[in-house]
This record gives sequence, C-alpha cells and structure tokens, in this order.
Amino acid sequence: MKIKTWIDRPLHQTAKALRAGEVSAESLCDEAIANHERFGQLLGAYKTWDGDGALLSAGLADQAFQRGYDFGPLQGFPISVKDLYGVRGLPVYAGSSKPLPEKWQTEGPVISSLRRQIAPITGKTHTVEFAFGGVGVNGNWPTPRNPWSPQVHRVPGGSSAGAGVSLCEGSAAVALGTDTAGSVRIPASVTGNAGLKTSAGRWSLDGLVPLSETFDSPGVLARSIEDIAYAFAAIDPVCNRSELSSRLANVRPDLAGLRIGVCGRLFWDDCSPGVAEAVEKALKEAERKGARIQNIDIPELDETYSIFRAGGLAAVELLAFLRTELPSWIETLDPNVAARTAGAGELSAAEFVVRDRRLRQLAATAVRVFDSCDVIVTPTVAITPPTVEEVSVTEVYNQQNMLMLRNTSIVSLLNLCAMTLPVGLDGAGMPVGMQVIGRRMMEESLILMARGLELAIGNGRDRLGEPEMLRAAFV
Amino acid sequence: MKIKTWIDRPLHQTAKALRAGEVSAESLCDEAIANHERFGQLLGAYKTWDGDGALLSAGLADQAFQRGYDFGPLQGFPISVKDLYGVRGLPVYAGSSKPLPEKWQTEGPVISSLRRQIAPITGKTHTVEFAFGGVGVNGNWPTPRNPWSPQVHRVPGGSSAGAGVSLCEGSAAVALGTDTAGSVRIPASVTGNAGLKTSAGRWSLDGLVPLSETFDSPGVLARSIEDIAYAFAAIDPVCNRSELSSRLANVRPDLAGLRIGVCGRLFWDDCSPGVAEAVEKALKEAERKGARIQNIDIPELDETYSIFRAGGLAAVELLAFLRTELPSWIETLDPNVAARTAGAGELSAAEFVVRDRRLRQLAATAVRVFDSCDVIVTPTVAITPPTVEEVSVTEVYNQQNMLMLRNTSIVSLLNLCAMTLPVGLDGAGMPVGMQVIGRRMMEESLILMARGLELAIGNGRDRLGEPEMLRAAFV
Repeated sequence: MKIKTWIDRPLHQTAKALRAGEVSAESLCDEAIANHERFGQLLGAYKTWDGDGALLSAGLADQAFQRGYDFGPLQGFPISVKDLYGVRGLPVYAGSSKPLPEKWQTEGPVISSLRRQIAPITGKTHTVEFAFGGVGVNGNWPTPRNPWSPQVHRVPGGSSAGAGVSLCEGSAAVALGTDTAGSVRIPASVTGNAGLKTSAGRWSLDGLVPLSETFDSPGVLARSIEDIAYAFAAIDPVCNRSELSSRLANVRPDLAGLRIGVCGRLFWDDCSPGVAEAVEKALKEAERKGARIQNIDIPELDETYSIFRAGGLAAVELLAFLRTELPSWIETLDPNVAARTAGAGELSAAEFVVRDRRLRQLAATAVRVFDSCDVIVTPTVAITPPTVEEVSVTEVYNQQNMLMLRNTSIVSLLNLCAMTLPVGLDGAGMPVGMQVIGRRMMEESLILMARGLELAIGNGRDRLGEPEMLRAAFV
Repeated sequence: MKIKTWIDRPLHQTAKALRAGEVSAESLCDEAIANHERFGQLLGAYKTWDGDGALLSAGLADQAFQRGYDFGPLQGFPISVKDLYGVRGLPVYAGSSKPLPEKWQTEGPVISSLRRQIAPITGKTHTVEFAFGGVGVNGNWPTPRNPWSPQVHRVPGGSSAGAGVSLCEGSAAVALGTDTAGSVRIPASVTGNAGLKTSAGRWSLDGLVPLSETFDSPGVLARSIEDIAYAFAAIDPVCNRSELSSRLANVRPDLAGLRIGVCGRLFWDDCSPGVAEAVEKALKEAERKGARIQNIDIPELDETYSIFRAGGLAAVELLAFLRTELPSWIETLDPNVAARTAGAGELSAAEFVVRDRRLRQLAATAVRVFDSCDVIVTPTVAITPPTVEEVSVTEVYNQQNMLMLRNTSIVSLLNLCAMTLPVGLDGAGMPVGMQVIGRRMMEESLILMARGLELAIGNGRDRLGEPEMLRAAFV
C-alpha cells in the first residue's frame, strides 16, 4: 500500500509541518519529482515539466522559512499549472502545435500570487487546444491517461486535461486549471479529485490565453474540498482569509439546516450506469446527517443548454481572438476545435448579441432558485469518461463532448460558481463527482457548505481509495 | 428684455429660496408652464407635455417644504425627461411611431431618484428614434426647433432633441437626456446649454429603452456647469454629496495648475466657420487665468473614429434589441435609422467581437494621455447645426450626422466622461460648445475642473445672451 507522504496529506497539516521544520519544501518537492519520475511517462500529465525550476523555488521557500519569513499559505507547495497560464520562462502552447509568442508568458495575478508566496511551479499541464473541449483529447499532443482505468486509455477530462492527473500522480499538491464550461470541474470529477470553478470576474484573466472573455474563470483542483478551501483562501484577492479559515475550522459533519436543491430533470438524463446512483447515495447520506433535500425547478435550464449546444458565446469569442492575435494558428487547429470555431464563423453579430443578452436575462432570473435552497447538487459529469479510441470518431466525440459538458456548462452560462467533490465510482469503476452549485461571487459560502458535505459524507480519497493503476505501482 | 425668473437662476439659489419660502414649487412650475404655453408651439420640444402632472408634484413638494421635509436638492424643480426613460403614466415612444409596450414605462433608478426628491416631471422630450442619430431629426415626428436660429429651422442636435430646447424655452430647470455617442453633449452644445455625459456604467440603465448596452449612459443638460454639478450631486448614487458641494463652493476663477490637453488633429478638422475660433478664444482666456495648454496626442484617435464610422457596436446592439423585444418596430423605422441598422445586419459575430475587444484595448491604452494633462478640450460639435431641409437629403444627413457625432463619439468609445459648456457663437450665430473630457468614473474631478473653467471664462448664458428668437418674444 502507498505510504501517506507529505504531498498526500491535507495542505494545512503539511503547512504546519513546513513551518515547524518537520518537513522541508525541498523534500516535498523531491517527493513530487520522484512521483513524476515514477508515473510521468505512463500518465503524461505535463506538456512541460520543470522539476529543476520547482526545486530552486523550494530551496528559496526553505531559506525563507528558516529566516522566519512567511509569504503565505502556499509557500513551499508544488503546484502544477495548466498550459494556458503565462509562466515566466516556460513556453505556452495553449494546447496548440507550436509555442505562442512570448508575450503570452507574462504572468497575471493568479500566477503572481503563487510567486509572492514562493509556491514552486512543477510545470505546465496539458490542455485541450485553446481549452475548447470537455473530453480532454488534443490532436496535437498525446492525451494524458486517466489513472483510474488500468486496462484501456480513458480520457482525463478537459480542458484542463493534465491537471487532475498531476494530482493523482502525486507531482503537485494543487493544480491550477481554467473553467469556461466545465474545464476544471470535469477533469477533477473524472480523476477523483475536488475542483472549484470561481465566478467569472472574481479572479483576473490577465496572463491567460483566452477562450471566452465572458465565461472564462481560473480555478483550482486539489485532493479534497478542504485543500481547495486552503488554496482558495491563499489565492483569492478579496476574501477575508482569517475569517474563512476560522469558519472552516468550525465546520462540523452536521448538515442540519442545509437546504440542498435537486432539479430532477436534464442534469440526471442519459447518465452512465452508476453515475446518478453514486450521487443519489451521497445525497441520502447528506440527508441522514441533517440536510433537507428540496425538489427545485430551474425554468431557465433547457433554453440555457440549447444556447450552449448552439455554440454559446465561446466559439465566436475564440474565433475573434485567433483572428486578431494568432491568425496563423487557425489553419492548424485540432480538427474538433476547428469544426466548432468554423461553425461560429457563420453567426451574425446581431444573433450573437441577442444570445449574449438572453443569457444575461436567464442568469438574472435563474438566481431566484436560491430562494428555496442553499446549494444545488447534480452529477458533475453525466457519463463515464470514454476511451481515447471511442472519441477518435468525430460523431462520437461530438456526442460525448456535449454530454461531458452538459451539467457544468449550464452553471457557467447562468453565471454561478460551483465545486465538485468525489463521491464514488460508477459502473465502469471510474470516479463520480458531485457538483455543488452556489450563487455568483459567494465562493466563501459555497466552500463552507461543500466542506460540510465532505465532512458529513466522507473525504473523496477515503471513499474512492487510490487508483488501481497507481496502487499496483506502489506494491 | 427678459426678466430673470426663478427658473432661470442658478439652481442652488432657487433651492435656497424654496426652502426659505421666498418662492413656492408651484409658482416655479407655473413659470415653466407659462413659458411652455408661450413657446411650446413654436419650439416643439416635447413629445408628451404633462404640465398638470408637474403641478400636482409641485404641490406635494410645497407641502413637504411647509412641513419641514427636505427630500433632496431637486425637490420642487421642474425637470424634462427624454422620451427614452420610463415614466409611470406617460407613454414611451422612444421616437418611434407608436407607443412601446407598457413595461417600458417602468421607472429606473434615475427617475426614481427624481421621484424620491419630489421633482416635478414636465413631460417627455422628443428623441431621435431609438436615440440612434446625432442630428436631432426624426421622420416620425416634427423636429424641435433650435431657438438660436430665428430665420430657418435648424436642428436642435440629437438624439436628446427636445432636451436642450426645453431648457431654452424655460419649461424645465434641468433636462434628462441619454448619451451613447454624443446625444447629451450635442443638443446641449448647439442650444447653448451645458451637458454632462456620465461614464458608461456609472448610472443605471434600468428603466431606459436601450440603444447600446455597452455605451449608453444617462446624462443631464442644464443652463450652466454650476447647475449640472447641482443636479449631478442630487442624482448620482455614489458621490459624496456634501464633499462635492463644499468643494464646488470653493472653486475660484483661478486656473493655476490646470493642465488642459489639446490634441491638434481630427477634433479640429472640418470645423464650420467660427467653431474652432470660439473654442480657441476660450482656451486663450483659460490660459490667461493660469491654465497650462499642453499639446497632446491620442494615438488611438483615428482607429477609434474609424470603428465608429463602421457602425461601432450600437447598430448591432440596436438591431439585436429590436429583433428580441420589438420586432414589429423594425419595418416602420425612420429611414435614417433603418439604413444604419440594416447595414449592421451583415456584420459577423466574430467581427463584432473583434471590434468590441479592440475598442476595449484602445480605451485601456488611451487613458495614458491623462499622464500629461488633467482634462482634454475639443469643440463639442465641429459644425454649425444644419437646417432640417438640408438633412432631408440622405447623403447630406449621413455626412452631417458623422460630423456632428465625431468629437463626442470618440470620447464614448474610449470610455471616458465629458461635459460641454457654451463658449460663444459661430459664424452663423449658433452656439458653440467646448467639450471638456475627463477620466472614466472621475465625474467629480471633471465637474470641479469644468466649474473652474466656467468661472474663469464666464458663464455660458452670460457669454451668449438669450436666443434672439425668444428675446423677441419677451420684448
């Protein structure tokens, strides 16, 4: 059995150990590097690995610790970064076939925040090209392997395709992703990790290659809601860190008073065997711990999803971005991305504006649902992640991509924030995530409620165990 | 000669008199009604006149004064409202040929603010159809007459076509307009009044028929910068009213330290005889009073204006709005408005997004110009307002419309705020306004600087005198 190493423990425990001198940032980083050496080839989470760079930062973090400097909660924690973020000195491909111009390496506020805290960056994880897809495949580069499927190569979820995998392999304590229609929540869910999609507008998009300026949001993947909460408090520019920490420390596995809204349709349609069941089981446990399950309706659901299916805003926004900033990238696009952006070229400006306004109206009225519940729960991803072979057929890709994105995309288009936490395995033995949806800009409340759920129904990693594929490697 | 009536005095003086019982709101309203009875037929400022309603409110304002209630600075002041605002009980045409559905009568925060202060609303002033045009003509309704041109019917400027005229005729102490590309500043300028275009996003657009959700901004016209300042402080939801009032009271006609930026190109091209000269003369006077004139360049100028000439965002946004909310209004559009929206129908969504992003970039870099100056000064409108007959020819309309909008549209697209103050008469004897441009959301500073300019170079009404046409009526 795998020995619980420092990188596997809750971040706040390791953080204490770092400050008490029980473990050094360098040895934490060594663990990450050793894990990567063991599994990196097999899993392929990274487009660009930077163990040496991470080790240098870890050394600096240790010197700071030794001299009594505390630059923030993430000091010394190895963090993987989706290759959509600009990181000084590391190329940005954004999933494309060639590196982007150097200006895209400029670091924005999210990365700056890691830098200020001296958090070693282990490298750039694979992404779907320009983050436009929920499956996790990319014609330009090998697809990271979902470690939960030892026999066949199942997809890791996308677009932050390497983010969840980097956590599974133990090369990062936290993974930075981005989420436009599910790109943090989907990979987190199908790799058995937790994830947070922040409200669009909460975290700056500066220093990120854009997909949709309207709906892009940076986000975090980690092993548990507890770790997400820790990382969120460390990165978020506005939250009251000490208040959130003390409220988190007081969360109990008692859900009395929590009203969980469940909308019985669409979110639960066409689920693969075991997916709905795992989430329902978690809901039953929550109910036993005092939560009240409320049947709710979201009248805006179908129209929102049909706008998403028609291309939403992102396809047009990506096309506009590429035409302006990277015109020569258009002809070499991954075929799946190319097909979706080409379709967007035919939309008229007026129709686009109508869509944009309509989405805003839908988002404005949809918040009423929170009058009768505190959070909404759905399966994060309706289906078992398909195999890379299955989605090599265009029609299958299109259908699976829509199904993987369905439950998360609606949340994005309705301008909410959401988390995913692992609740079980589906009929194919793949992880199932439960999506917990909250009001826009109410990340703190959402985190506190999701943490209550995690405590009440059990930590995801404890529920799921270790992926068989990696367990074998530890024996 | 015209006797200075209460409605012609600076608002703060009349406000004091109202509170001291020297004049009643009803008698102020009677003055407004009498003036409208005298000139209304001739000038045609109003689409819907509501003298009776105003009088009822004035009575209520008086009762409140008598009982010692002070509901705000505008209590008792008759105010005209552009027929784009929803006002309970009064129809909204938005310049179209038929009244809009009743929901457009819903009052938004700007009108609510007048209501809370018990400011009598005298009626709805004419607007270009859906506010889409800078000249002030509208095929659906008679064009308000510019009172500065006794011989020929010159246009009143648009799109708030009746707003400036309502001030000239003395039926309102303040006129509410809206400004997307100049629709407050242009009518204020060509009727010899002052005007304020607020930063987009500063005042709520709720309760307004939209032209461009991106660039629409409510605004105020009044007889002087001093009065604008008074009305702004009364309506603005965030300004520190008492601080602004006390700073305004301390403004002196000494401009030492004020850096006025003058960009020598584009803004000054193709001006009608006397326009540039009047603004230059005002600048010379400002210089004599201590202001420093700085030659500046705005590298973003030409590209911004060429995007405006290509239709900007408003044409598409209006088309999208009409298709969604008022589809049957499209076929009966005023020919000038129809031509501009029809063209917008051909733009692709991606090109629209490219334009939108590019405008944001231009706005983001253009603010650098304020490193070397505090305000930028231009002529508000480059040309003498044409006659209604001249602009009945489509080609002449198109050319004059662009020239009337040019100097103001650039300010809107660069996301700034601006005021206009009257500085003289042009070669045709028509008023010339000086546009004073400030940083986005810095309305308070802009107002203070513009007030300094007004004190230093003289109040517009004193400089210009009374329009001959109305003077004749007083003799």
